[in-house]
Amino acid sequence: MITPDPDDPVFALHRGGKLAVASTVPLATREDLAIAYTPGVARVCEAIAADPSIYPEYTWVGHTVAVVTDGSAVLGLGNIGPRAAMPVMEGKAVLFKQFGGVDAVPICLDTQDVDEIVATVTALAPSFGGINLEDISAPRCFEIERRLDDALPIPVFHDDQHGTAIVVLAALRNAATLFGHKLSDLRVVVSGAGAAGIAVTKMLIAGGVTAGDVLLCDSQGIIHSGRSGLNDAKAELAALTNAGGRTGTISDALRGADVLIGVSGGSIDESAVAAMATGAIVFALANPTPEVHPDVAGRYAAVVATGRSDFPNQINNVLAFPGVFRGALDAGARRITEAMKVAAAEAIAAVVADDLRPDQIVPSALDPRVAPAVAAAVAAAIDPAATGVS
Amino acid sequence: MITPDPDDPVFALHRGGKLAVASTVPLATREDLAIAYTPGVARVCEAIAADPSIYPEYTWVGHTVAVVTDGSAVLGLGNIGPRAAMPVMEGKAVLFKQFGGVDAVPICLDTQDVDEIVATVTALAPSFGGINLEDISAPRCFEIERRLDDALPIPVFHDDQHGTAIVVLAALRNAATLFGHKLSDLRVVVSGAGAAGIAVTKMLIAGGVTAGDVLLCDSQGIIHSGRSGLNDAKAELAALTNAGGRTGTISDALRGADVLIGVSGGSIDESAVAAMATGAIVFALANPTPEVHPDVAGRYAAVVATGRSDFPNQINNVLAFPGVFRGALDAGARRITEAMKVAAAEAIAAVVADDLRPDQIVPSALDPRVAPAVAAAVAAAIDPAATGVS
Repeated sequence: MITPDPDDPVFALHRGGKLAVASTVPLATREDLAIAYTPGVARVCEAIAADPSIYPEYTWVGHTVAVVTDGSAVLGLGNIGPRAAMPVMEGKAVLFKQFGGVDAVPICLDTQDVDEIVATVTALAPSFGGINLEDISAPRCFEIERRLDDALPIPVFHDDQHGTAIVVLAALRNAATLFGHKLSDLRVVVSGAGAAGIAVTKMLIAGGVTAGDVLLCDSQGIIHSGRSGLNDAKAELAALTNAGGRTGTISDALRGADVLIGVSGGSIDESAVAAMATGAIVFALANPTPEVHPDVAGRYAAVVATGRSDFPNQINNVLAFPGVFRGALDAGARRITEAMKVAAAEAIAAVVADDLRPDQIVPSALDPRVAPAVAAAVAAAIDPAATGVS
Repeated sequence: MITPDPDDPVFALHRGGKLAVASTVPLATREDLAIAYTPGVARVCEAIAADPSIYPEYTWVGHTVAVVTDGSAVLGLGNIGPRAAMPVMEGKAVLFKQFGGVDAVPICLDTQDVDEIVATVTALAPSFGGINLEDISAPRCFEIERRLDDALPIPVFHDDQHGTAIVVLAALRNAATLFGHKLSDLRVVVSGAGAAGIAVTKMLIAGGVTAGDVLLCDSQGIIHSGRSGLNDAKAELAALTNAGGRTGTISDALRGADVLIGVSGGSIDESAVAAMATGAIVFALANPTPEVHPDVAGRYAAVVATGRSDFPNQINNVLAFPGVFRGALDAGARRITEAMKVAAAEAIAAVVADDLRPDQIVPSALDPRVAPAVAAAVAAAIDPAATGVS
């Protein structure tokens, strides 16, 4: 059991939490009070009631996001519940602010029932300009996101799916560019068919990888259309991927493959990596323990990326979500489309274009150029018909 | 229809809203990121999972409150909905921060159904250290507050009821002290039996006014136990108040009364005020138009208070709610009891004790001494058995 030690720098930093609410208006005099609060505020309320389209402009909602979790799949810790999840959600809010200038509020829900989560987020949605779903386990996360995306007039984005997928696409584009490959020529194995694996697969296809050349693997091995017992998300991809109808284990899948993207948390044998094609690309993203150690993968692969900050090529969601929401909020987007996600990936990839090296296929997580570039690309990629407040 | 004029100082101030989320931790280096976020944060999560009692201490929840509304009874504007209510809720959050150091987040709900509001707030409750209900219409507010207070392990406080009631009790104590009256000797008329009127009546009784000597009036006149069609809240008070079984109009009620507390928004004739007892106390709290103009009331009454900042003796909830929640959060209170509310009223009254005058029975809304005094009194008044996290 871990107990807080006040001398431990981690617990010392987290004491009192990591967030505060700040006022952006003066409140020193009666006149200040009369403008910021009653009676002045009543006129702003009446103006919004008369014309709801001004709502994001005359409240903080235009720059806020709720970071919503049910605590069911937190980091590598699993189903630790809403309270134990809060330090992560606060950290996410800190990153939103630091990189995207987005004001994010952690909302940790005391339910893991899909209907209750959808009802709760729908009810509180007017309070925010967007909904960032976080650390909700698969396959529940797919239904929750789909239903909220359909129900709400504001962007909904499950970061564990799409944030990861955007950065993987960015990294793969740069790795392919480095060696003169086209995405459409690559044979790709995705190991892990949870939230991240499903979204990565879809994103890669949207970004140019040939659907039939992708093999998606879960703990039972390669997913194919003949397998029974697949959930809806896996069944959908079984029909799109694996045109050859291959079966077998992850090791079978990797034989001759150009790309491995590990988002499983499992482990992959060195011999399986060794059997990949020459000049292979390996993204072993499980945290803190990659599916294959990057030093081992490096013996066979031309490019290796991980989820860790202590190895080169860190695939970190923070490259995506602050800019994605900043761009969506700035443009008044009602949803985040595939085109916006692909644009985000291209923008991330472009930041390192001039400095592209095998050990630098993505920018640093702290690179301040990334979020503004992503925001601009996302805002430019929205369908103008898909804006406005309902 | 009111439309925003960018040159209007009110609209200029409210543009972009009045709140921001701030990070309280550094995030400049990879080391900062590793402590504030992954991998460091995982240990804090594990510690909370192992011992939930440390949750408020190691997250921002220990100093946060949700300001929750359904937009059904906003200021004097009525049922303008959740979006048009947001500027008021942001203003409330600004006041929470300024006076109580409490980090408050506006939650504007897209439902006015009692069951849905209770379910939504219950589901999101782990995200906050307290729930401040705001601008929810009567009688729905009574059921919502009661059910949430029963369901949640954190303080729930409907400010329109209890904030107003606490400040009214404080003001009445000081007005009585000024003229050597005991609260138990005063004949009190409360005009208005909505959220504020019901709570004021209960608070005055808890604070020492004789229940049978209170006449509670609504638009139909004096409430008595023989009247049919009373809602639960009115019926409860019909049984406690009006020991003489009086009937009739507000003017009938005021004849010979010592105290008028107007929280109705209606208007009261000058002749009715003139018929009150000598040395009467008149609190005409409707905003922006008091039930009787303070200059008119002043011809007959020894003390006059209003809800307005441009007359003496402003009865302003801001004297109560920041300190009430600050004290409740500091002490780890699970609920806000009658004893804590009476203690808050006494603390507010005590701030002006040495400077008590007929035109200064309550402190200024901007007096920085009030919230700390209220917080200390509220924290000292909690039942030690009623603390802790469930």
